[in-house]
Amino acid sequence: MKAYGLTSRCTGSDALCFVASALASQGLVTTNQVFARWFQDRVEAHRFVVEPIALNELDRWRFDQATGRIAHETGKFFVVDGVRIEQRSPERLSWDQPILHQAEIGILGFVVKRFDGVLHFLVQAKMEPGNLHYVQVSPTVQATRSNFTRVHQGRAPDYLEYFLDMRLSRVMVDCLQSEQGSRFWRKLNRNIVVEAQEDVPLRDDYCWLTLGQLNHLLRQDNVVNMDARTVLSCLPLAAPELEGWFIEDYPKCIEAQCGIDRGLLRVPDNLFEAACLMSLVCPANAEAYAHTLRWLSRQRFGADQSVTSIAPREMRNWTVRSDAIAHDEGRFFRVIGVRVDAANREIGTWCQPIVQPASEGLMACFTRQTSGQVEVLLQSKPEPGNADTIELGPSVQCFRRDHREADLPSFTHDADNPDFGIWHVNTLQSEEGGRFYREANRNRIIEVGGDWLVEPPDSYRWVPLNQLRPMAVHSRILNVEARCLLASLGAGTLAEGARSRYPCPK
Amino acid sequence: MKAYGLTSRCTGSDALCFVASALASQGLVTTNQVFARWFQDRVEAHRFVVEPIALNELDRWRFDQATGRIAHETGKFFVVDGVRIEQRSPERLSWDQPILHQAEIGILGFVVKRFDGVLHFLVQAKMEPGNLHYVQVSPTVQATRSNFTRVHQGRAPDYLEYFLDMRLSRVMVDCLQSEQGSRFWRKLNRNIVVEAQEDVPLRDDYCWLTLGQLNHLLRQDNVVNMDARTVLSCLPLAAPELEGWFIEDYPKCIEAQCGIDRGLLRVPDNLFEAACLMSLVCPANAEAYAHTLRWLSRQRFGADQSVTSIAPREMRNWTVRSDAIAHDEGRFFRVIGVRVDAANREIGTWCQPIVQPASEGLMACFTRQTSGQVEVLLQSKPEPGNADTIELGPSVQCFRRDHREADLPSFTHDADNPDFGIWHVNTLQSEEGGRFYREANRNRIIEVGGDWLVEPPDSYRWVPLNQLRPMAVHSRILNVEARCLLASLGAGTLAEGARSRYPCPK
Repeated sequence: MKAYGLTSRCTGSDALCFVASALASQGLVTTNQVFARWFQDRVEAHRFVVEPIALNELDRWRFDQATGRIAHETGKFFVVDGVRIEQRSPERLSWDQPILHQAEIGILGFVVKRFDGVLHFLVQAKMEPGNLHYVQVSPTVQATRSNFTRVHQGRAPDYLEYFLDMRLSRVMVDCLQSEQGSRFWRKLNRNIVVEAQEDVPLRDDYCWLTLGQLNHLLRQDNVVNMDARTVLSCLPLAAPELEGWFIEDYPKCIEAQCGIDRGLLRVPDNLFEAACLMSLVCPANAEAYAHTLRWLSRQRFGADQSVTSIAPREMRNWTVRSDAIAHDEGRFFRVIGVRVDAANREIGTWCQPIVQPASEGLMACFTRQTSGQVEVLLQSKPEPGNADTIELGPSVQCFRRDHREADLPSFTHDADNPDFGIWHVNTLQSEEGGRFYREANRNRIIEVGGDWLVEPPDSYRWVPLNQLRPMAVHSRILNVEARCLLASLGAGTLAEGARSRYPCPK
Repeated sequence: MKAYGLTSRCTGSDALCFVASALASQGLVTTNQVFARWFQDRVEAHRFVVEPIALNELDRWRFDQATGRIAHETGKFFVVDGVRIEQRSPERLSWDQPILHQAEIGILGFVVKRFDGVLHFLVQAKMEPGNLHYVQVSPTVQATRSNFTRVHQGRAPDYLEYFLDMRLSRVMVDCLQSEQGSRFWRKLNRNIVVEAQEDVPLRDDYCWLTLGQLNHLLRQDNVVNMDARTVLSCLPLAAPELEGWFIEDYPKCIEAQCGIDRGLLRVPDNLFEAACLMSLVCPANAEAYAHTLRWLSRQRFGADQSVTSIAPREMRNWTVRSDAIAHDEGRFFRVIGVRVDAANREIGTWCQPIVQPASEGLMACFTRQTSGQVEVLLQSKPEPGNADTIELGPSVQCFRRDHREADLPSFTHDADNPDFGIWHVNTLQSEEGGRFYREANRNRIIEVGGDWLVEPPDSYRWVPLNQLRPMAVHSRILNVEARCLLASLGAGTLAEGARSRYPCPK
């Protein structure tokens, strides 16, 4: 086994250490070639069977015929319930829908460790029943409280002790984040990164990757799961040490501060990736940040939505059947049942309800560059499951079949038009495979010219990239769709000569 | 009428302008002498009658005999309901209690304006039925959505237009804040400060005060109401311009940046007030702030409380009677009814339910100085009405009769012991007089030596003062009790020779 150098002379901030890891495009423990073989091997190592079954055949779940509610016999995990939404503003709307209640806060956590000074993330090749191809790259631990209090009587998740016993690790990131407010009732997960203090035993299904390697995987479809992406969106990258340095000199600064051989670090060779990185490492302007928060307060004040719990059977335009809870026009999503047989999970076989979306989603962020800063267009997005109704979503957050053609959200056509702006990221990314069935949404980062949408509508706002990380460390500001796109900004590339495709000034 | 100078040459940050206003101990529009006469006059100008009446005699309110719920006939304002709390951690507890549902976000707002460059706050002498002496100094506007959509068919609140029409004003502060999570279900108010762009007509019951004058009033009992205090706690004071300056030179810097005659500004002549100000003007260290937020996430993750709505009549240990909803041992609080006759409110006469506490509260913050920084001891405080269960409360937040003597919260005896530390603030302050009946709680800021409680219990933490304002601009971090104490930090004074009263090192 290779002996890794000590790194006791690191004086850099955590942010600088994460930037260093992002610049390490090759792993010191797992090369990209080794990873590719290992991951394929993991995919093939286990046999998974996921078969749809009727809701009233879900073992250990109670499907209440009278109300249509579905709950686990222990009262844990989650409950499928209904809600009625009366929205008076920003626009008048009234609708019913199923919603998942998951009251307990789960852990989505990475263990990280320095090898030759470079932070590596311990990733898991994890099977989830809803994932396309089943296995994806996940955080080290991904566990609900029911998981780790072992309600299902399986074994405790590996490495959980690093998140519960603070003698084993040092906390680098720890924040509570919402998930899909259109489907979950006030769900929060703890997004956490801890640095192990000692050697970490490496188990099957786990391997060490740098942030640069994770960014590389984020360029591919359906490899890095949603839980990993949301945690990556919370990493601090604003490194005061890098203020005033040219990007070419970042490795020099990192070598001096973190004791990392600059030969291990690769400066992005495309303009977009470089511009994003430079924007992220520059600490946010306090007054500009406060300005954005004031806009958010005004949006929240302006939103008026009341949400009442109702039985699924009372939902207008939805039908509760034994095979599914479904919308009468086939829109939105269906709640179905699955039986899962997975040899390498804490418990090998189980049944559960799961949400199957009616169509592929489009999650797109427009970006622009103004005086060297990259800005993203965010929207004030009301969703019934959010504690404060409004969180900030990507420029476009749209499921085609949720809308009639005339009612598509603003900018959907622009985000779907390959001749509009430059597509730096254009991938399919899965949503949480433990709750959503084979959902992969189109993720797109589109660079536009500075002359487009100079004055956005009141519910949209151009936000400098370096304000997003401070938002992410506070709960309930950026929604999960925005956070996942934010995570993939490090994965953007610039097609040579693409600049001519900017939209023309009007 | 005096002509006030133009201030077009102000280049200072908003924070610097607020610091300048805090240093203006005398008003340019209303001197302290004029204010005292004016306020006394306002108190005497109107006749108020508040008389307790039975809950089933509240005009326009429905007291449901079967459930014990009380609601306004329009469904607006607020609802008196019941909740059952099952808390599994941090400690196992189970209890029932009444709770106020107030779903709509209200406005607590100050209009400010510069006179000779100095920001003045337009305060209102406002009557609330629950206030001791009825009239207190309030924000310019204090209105629920029901108020300003005129559900009660009264007139619209004065000056409301400055908060709704952004052509009239510039927003300086705008954040949503929680209120008493022990009594309100997820209540949020918009705490907002806007600077008027033009002359502002001055109506009866209103006058202009500097922040320095407000701080002076905060040294007195029951003069500045809770709504004013929570807004004042959100003012940005971290002025980058003042970094590296000695406090004696603040007026010089302010004169240069804000065009304010330095002769108008008074540097605090006591050590505690000066130390607090110096700590507040220094921008928070980003890494230290992130560390505090990580601690908060861990506390929130550790708290496990489920809250279920129940009918008041189902509440264990509470009795619903026609005169009150009361605890069987006389603890906590009672919900009673009042009939109000107030000539100068939007609507002259009304009835409402109101909460009467069983005992005076003690809200105390311990402070200490370490390497020039002032730190306050905050606690992770679970309350059933909070969206995230935990918000940060003052060191001691205690209603005597809520506890048996053996179960008093930590540090209550220390905070009540005049020989322990130095009491810089020791006032009685009212809580929201629109919902709470004659409640005035003891507010105390106590300076202790740096050798006391060096390692606080896990649910307590010493937090540098300059982290509290960034917390305040994000929602739901500091609870209202902590914010109100924070507002009164500018009102602290140091008794000469008091240093000998520090607790001895152990």
